[in-house]
Amino acid sequence: MKFTVQVKVMPLKELLDPQGKAVLGGLSNLGLKGVEEVRIGKHITLQVDAPSAEEAKKIAEEASKKLLANPVMEYYEISI
Amino acid sequence: MKFTVQVKVMPLKELLDPQGKAVLGGLSNLGLKGVEEVRIGKHITLQVDAPSAEEAKKIAEEASKKLLANPVMEYYEISI
Repeated sequence: MKFTVQVKVMPLKELLDPQGKAVLGGLSNLGLKGVEEVRIGKHITLQVDAPSAEEAKKIAEEASKKLLANPVMEYYEISI
Repeated sequence: MKFTVQVKVMPLKELLDPQGKAVLGGLSNLGLKGVEEVRIGKHITLQVDAPSAEEAKKIAEEASKKLLANPVMEYYEISI
């Protein structure tokens, strides 16, 4: 069976996010009010062929650990 | 009130995603089986100060249109 697995990879909360800071500045230059913080990460959609949803999640977990996320700077969340 | 708004910005389905293709190749080089397609986009977390969740969503919608997503190549989804 095919599963679509969503992986969210974000910069760790303890770290600065210069890209987010730049976007926050851009939004305020555009006159948009109300936004107080911006953090930018990656969103990865995987099409996984696996016998069960659990198995698909395991594959995504392994992919995240091995390639998608850098644990020194990022954390990841997986959802199906 | 403060709301955390999640914005997902992905390449349009009709377009090639070379970054995703590269990651797919990387996963297969690492010996990970089962992944058939990878698409990579951005995940943006906004901290919004707004009187209501609906208002916060509107602000995120405007930010997405004006700055976060390029409608020629990307679509976005907003969730609170």
